[in-house]
Amino acid sequence: MNKIRAVVFDAYGTLFDVYSVTARAEQLFPGKGEALALLWRERQIDYTRLRTMAAPDGALYKPFWALTVDALRYAAERLGMKLDEATEAQLLKEYACLSAFPENLGALKRLRRAGLPLGILSNGNPEMLDISVKSAGMHGLFDHVLSVDAVRQYKTAPAAYALGPQAFDLPAGDIVFVSSNGWDACGATWYGYKTFWINRAGHPAERLDVAPTGTGHDMNDLLAFLAASGVAV
Amino acid sequence: MNKIRAVVFDAYGTLFDVYSVTARAEQLFPGKGEALALLWRERQIDYTRLRTMAAPDGALYKPFWALTVDALRYAAERLGMKLDEATEAQLLKEYACLSAFPENLGALKRLRRAGLPLGILSNGNPEMLDISVKSAGMHGLFDHVLSVDAVRQYKTAPAAYALGPQAFDLPAGDIVFVSSNGWDACGATWYGYKTFWINRAGHPAERLDVAPTGTGHDMNDLLAFLAASGVAV
Repeated sequence: MNKIRAVVFDAYGTLFDVYSVTARAEQLFPGKGEALALLWRERQIDYTRLRTMAAPDGALYKPFWALTVDALRYAAERLGMKLDEATEAQLLKEYACLSAFPENLGALKRLRRAGLPLGILSNGNPEMLDISVKSAGMHGLFDHVLSVDAVRQYKTAPAAYALGPQAFDLPAGDIVFVSSNGWDACGATWYGYKTFWINRAGHPAERLDVAPTGTGHDMNDLLAFLAASGVAV
Repeated sequence: MNKIRAVVFDAYGTLFDVYSVTARAEQLFPGKGEALALLWRERQIDYTRLRTMAAPDGALYKPFWALTVDALRYAAERLGMKLDEATEAQLLKEYACLSAFPENLGALKRLRRAGLPLGILSNGNPEMLDISVKSAGMHGLFDHVLSVDAVRQYKTAPAAYALGPQAFDLPAGDIVFVSSNGWDACGATWYGYKTFWINRAGHPAERLDVAPTGTGHDMNDLLAFLAASGVAV
């Protein structure tokens, strides 16, 4: 097994806790907030995939923040919710300024002290990643904050995953890619990374004929996985 | 506007009514059948997209029927349902042998009598399409039954939509592509078809910065659209 020389994280749902979005939606639309948040998230991801599949050359690419707005408007309309400008702005602000999962900051700082190069590789566009990293208190913890915006193709396109090895100048097999999305962990495994799936929700494994290198419930389990793989953390 | 020289249909949900699958799931798992059918369908489509995006060369392609089985197993496991072999076989049989939507057969026969070349262009693999066409009573109505299996890329990949113009030897702009899936109608519009979205569920338009050429509620609305476009039906 290759030595682990860097760790790259997915952002939304992995580093940043998106639960506050559901809570705010529920506050604004009592009894329907969870449905709104779920459909919003579903369409947000659908739109990344439809655009990348339909135009591998990036001709239909639109930044993640714009897709996030599109998806919110679709979800609200479909669920029959009136989304005036102020309400939309509140929901979007909640999405822009997320918190870190409680154990994440400590775990990232420990990895940083261990001298392991760290990065983010996200569907998010650079502007939104910049705000999210700062509002989650993670400024200065990463060597590279990588956005698929550079290649105008969303995950699971190979060009998107290729950004990690390129930035760190390492083979994918020397990098651990960490995601809380099962499909993202699978996509990165297909690409050639070592992978760790933070299965916070306790979901079954995606049936994609590929398995992440490791799986756990939170970032502390990632630390244990790295230690067991020979990284001094 | 180009003259309309052929009509190509999506299959599942457009020609074939997949509601019976939900009904059977509900019968087998009272109170949870609809959730199972929804998650099953969601993962079935997710798996097509993840595989095509991750490997545009088709290296991760797996036929739609196999993905349908994978998705059912995932959905059942996630919802905590025990899926023994007999139950799984019943649900899959329901999916294999679907009925036509009530107005479809009459509409297709009218188009056929009008002399318009007709086709199917589906994510389904040839074997499952063959069974579905026969069990829906549509045998002999189509000039071409096209499966993305030929190119090992799922919709919305351009190679998938290209099968229509290739088979009919017509520019995409001379063909009407018909789908009940908003995203599929948008994908075909991006590709260059004239498109008609059969919006059976009354959903809002997908926010993909593109609109189908026409929209209606059922196949009779398609006939009206074709008549208004100069086709003698």
